[in-house]
Amino acid sequence: MKPYCYGVDLGGTTVKIGRFSTGEAEPEKWEIPTRTEDGGSHILPDIAKAVLDNMKVNGICHDMVEGIGIGVPGPVEDNGFVHGCANLGWGPMNAAGILSELTGLPVRAANDANAAALGEQRAGCGRNYQSLVMITLGTGVGGGVVLNGEIVSGTNGAAGEIGHMQVVDPADIVGHCGCGRVGCLEQAASATGLVNMTRKILETSGKASCLRSVDDLSAKAILDAARDGDPLAQEAAEKMMHYLALAASLIASVVDPDAFVIGGGVSRAGAYLIDGIARHYKKIVFHAHRETPFIQAVLGNDAGMIGAAGLIWDGNK
Amino acid sequence: MKPYCYGVDLGGTTVKIGRFSTGEAEPEKWEIPTRTEDGGSHILPDIAKAVLDNMKVNGICHDMVEGIGIGVPGPVEDNGFVHGCANLGWGPMNAAGILSELTGLPVRAANDANAAALGEQRAGCGRNYQSLVMITLGTGVGGGVVLNGEIVSGTNGAAGEIGHMQVVDPADIVGHCGCGRVGCLEQAASATGLVNMTRKILETSGKASCLRSVDDLSAKAILDAARDGDPLAQEAAEKMMHYLALAASLIASVVDPDAFVIGGGVSRAGAYLIDGIARHYKKIVFHAHRETPFIQAVLGNDAGMIGAAGLIWDGNK
Repeated sequence: MKPYCYGVDLGGTTVKIGRFSTGEAEPEKWEIPTRTEDGGSHILPDIAKAVLDNMKVNGICHDMVEGIGIGVPGPVEDNGFVHGCANLGWGPMNAAGILSELTGLPVRAANDANAAALGEQRAGCGRNYQSLVMITLGTGVGGGVVLNGEIVSGTNGAAGEIGHMQVVDPADIVGHCGCGRVGCLEQAASATGLVNMTRKILETSGKASCLRSVDDLSAKAILDAARDGDPLAQEAAEKMMHYLALAASLIASVVDPDAFVIGGGVSRAGAYLIDGIARHYKKIVFHAHRETPFIQAVLGNDAGMIGAAGLIWDGNK
Repeated sequence: MKPYCYGVDLGGTTVKIGRFSTGEAEPEKWEIPTRTEDGGSHILPDIAKAVLDNMKVNGICHDMVEGIGIGVPGPVEDNGFVHGCANLGWGPMNAAGILSELTGLPVRAANDANAAALGEQRAGCGRNYQSLVMITLGTGVGGGVVLNGEIVSGTNGAAGEIGHMQVVDPADIVGHCGCGRVGCLEQAASATGLVNMTRKILETSGKASCLRSVDDLSAKAILDAARDGDPLAQEAAEKMMHYLALAASLIASVVDPDAFVIGGGVSRAGAYLIDGIARHYKKIVFHAHRETPFIQAVLGNDAGMIGAAGLIWDGNK
């Protein structure tokens, strides 16, 4: 194992880069903007320049660097082939191969949500587990499957697409999912989904609720109100927890992981949400999977970068 | 790789044993009865004796044998620990460890449905695929997940419990699943489930059907009638296919396999069933998983024994 490695989390607005070195617990971290103009053609050259500049400034030569791991916001196959990333302007290409050409370093790529799951497994809340499934609750719902310490990418680079599991009763939600279907987990358990589901209850129910006086309804406001005992907010929160538990119970039937990790901005609701999902899960799951724990992610926005480094480097083990 | 290996498929009535040898395409196969009396305590000694006798008769000494792989009808962890097998009379024990003690050979164990999936991947219809999910349609519905040529066992030895995915509308089925819950895939897609679902339609629908004159309704009779154009049988068959497709679409969201393999006695309905599941799947699945093929298992009752050998031996590669 060489002494250095770079982890890159490529987002739609910024690129987070970390230089990891043996013997140092924390990476050196910095960010560069994601230039999505011109079909995203500047993105990989910008990343290559950032890495090569950092190596030069710090006197690090190529044979001291194990490689670059990169998390990409779209489907990625094990061989680094990206099927396209709409919000980067990218079509299909081998992102890992191109970045390797540009830097002269070995590169491995993964989907960003999968990388975040690996990050939590290697260095976060999942360090006691070899296998976990992470469910990321943000604007959408993402996911990542890690088995025996390795990301499951899938034949189309589309394993861990937890947000598009069709488990939600159409009666509980509004309109279509971004994927064009109806009933995706994302429609009930993303920040947007929870807000839409709550608005529907507000419109159709006569229940009193402190949420009726909130102008700009947010997932945080709903989960705070639910925790504080507001019955209508609780109705929406319980539906969200139920659908997350249902998806988890189906996931357990497939891969039976050591643990479920709940991450993303919405997971800051903490024990109220996590314990609520676990309570619903225990009620509905097949008996063999009943004891699987639900835990809260701890690495926040660094998970993807740390997991990306973990694709190529085992320096902290 | 040593020149011999034994594969064992342990069933509730008989034990199928195969001796595999390098350079021979077909194993030598035989069966012994499964003696379930006395808490199943004779089963592993009987298997050990069968293997050791076969070695003796054929002049095979221990250092010519790679080991024994065994498929067991219950949850099995990667380390060979069996959580208990009700139909063998077994409680929790390390079956692999005990059989290894009794024979002086290395032993690896897996769940029998998982072993069958590995068998199809190594030597059957899945030879072109590294990753597949097998769904076995028999008296119940079993399953096995193989990723990158390895069985996914799960933390409780209960990965691939496809039959207990809760995807079925209770309005379509009768009573409870054997696991105590309502809505398991098994209740709509096992031989028994299809018969129960069809009986419910026969009772509540006014449709004419050739099935009304059948005394002893079977899954085969229903699927034959459906293929021959009987509208009521088709209604039941389409429901079964839909629920199998729904389960497959959810599985794809988790592990995105190269292919789905449909096996078990009911799969003898062939293209009518397999193509029907694929047709429903394409209608409902997330776009990234739309092209995943459905193929029919080919190894029949030998899949488990072949896959068991595959746990410990790569002799045909």
